[in-house]
Amino acid sequence: MAASGDEVKLLGAWASPYVIRVRIALELKEVSYEYLEQEIWENKSELLLKSNPVYKKVPVLIHKDRPICDSAIILQYIDEAWAGTGPSILPSDPYERAVALFWASYVTDTWLSTTKKIINASTEKEKAETVEQSLVGLSLLEEAYEKSFKGKPFFGGDNIGYLDIALGCFLGWLRALEKISGIKLIDRAKLPLLAEWAEHFGAVATVEKLIPKTDKLVEYYTKVHQPK
Amino acid sequence: MAASGDEVKLLGAWASPYVIRVRIALELKEVSYEYLEQEIWENKSELLLKSNPVYKKVPVLIHKDRPICDSAIILQYIDEAWAGTGPSILPSDPYERAVALFWASYVTDTWLSTTKKIINASTEKEKAETVEQSLVGLSLLEEAYEKSFKGKPFFGGDNIGYLDIALGCFLGWLRALEKISGIKLIDRAKLPLLAEWAEHFGAVATVEKLIPKTDKLVEYYTKVHQPK
Repeated sequence: MAASGDEVKLLGAWASPYVIRVRIALELKEVSYEYLEQEIWENKSELLLKSNPVYKKVPVLIHKDRPICDSAIILQYIDEAWAGTGPSILPSDPYERAVALFWASYVTDTWLSTTKKIINASTEKEKAETVEQSLVGLSLLEEAYEKSFKGKPFFGGDNIGYLDIALGCFLGWLRALEKISGIKLIDRAKLPLLAEWAEHFGAVATVEKLIPKTDKLVEYYTKVHQPK
Repeated sequence: MAASGDEVKLLGAWASPYVIRVRIALELKEVSYEYLEQEIWENKSELLLKSNPVYKKVPVLIHKDRPICDSAIILQYIDEAWAGTGPSILPSDPYERAVALFWASYVTDTWLSTTKKIINASTEKEKAETVEQSLVGLSLLEEAYEKSFKGKPFFGGDNIGYLDIALGCFLGWLRALEKISGIKLIDRAKLPLLAEWAEHFGAVATVEKLIPKTDKLVEYYTKVHQPK
């Protein structure tokens, strides 16, 4: 990897999809960085508390001693701060940028909050309803792919881009969900384009390296969610 | 106003702070546009449903027959699509852009959701608590202003920018809140820098024209919230 010339640190936690977003972007841009694994439940480090006093959460990117928080904003920052290095993360056309930002925000703010509820559903009925809602969300992404991105392997075109990273960072957890509860959300029968996309995205060397192994995520989930 | 050369339509609702964001940005960029007031509670127009099928909400900017949704994304789109016209909305420096995006997202996602609860609080205790939480949020913005923006009249520097618009769009509703409930959030005694900023921002001709009159907002609030 090429050295960036300026010191880059990433405060992260290995199982966090948001941290994976940032790592994929840094690797795409060939930015050398020091990765600092953080305690995120308790005993948060002074560096984390100082760097993200508002949310006290990872990921935080520290570049030239200045912290940048929020994975969506960090992705945009990486794209702009290393504009001359590696492929662009966001499209250059303003409309295409807006489309990528819109769907990425939909994934994070709307689809994810529904999908998270699947695992915590207290009844089978509630679980079935949240699965249905999550699938409605994914079918909107399937339609968007069909309409705006089809014919290319990625939302970003021939290379992975902003929306690929924003959605694809959850691949590991989607696989873990399947293992834990038997629910396969991105199923080829229902969402053929997204299923194909997930296969392409998951096979990219950088992504394959950074998405945690399913068994490790399941073990982590079991540990965090075990009755106290 | 200079014609943009391409047809621009804005689907809006006069009392929506998010729509005001877009209108301020369009005026700053001297973009001519057709404003189409929408029904937002029921009887939504075909154009709105077709243009924003995911959220079915205003604002929607339609440029060259293509819809762009979500006020934060629309602001960025306007800045980029009309890069050569008027002042920039976001700073050009990647770090300063990230800071503006971070605080704007904080305002919309965190501060606003707390502040909205003030008016719906069912007990005096709950109201006092939500006011306190909202003030904590504003004091973070006061600190950010002190740290990163001080010495200039606006968060954007000498001219209003992204964060000014993202926060300032709520000025009308903050004045209405004061009139309805007697609660003045941006109070000079507690938040001197923000109070001064609000004065500067509210006095900008474009802003003054676009922020609805307080009495009109109070009347609207009373009508929407009257017992059915």
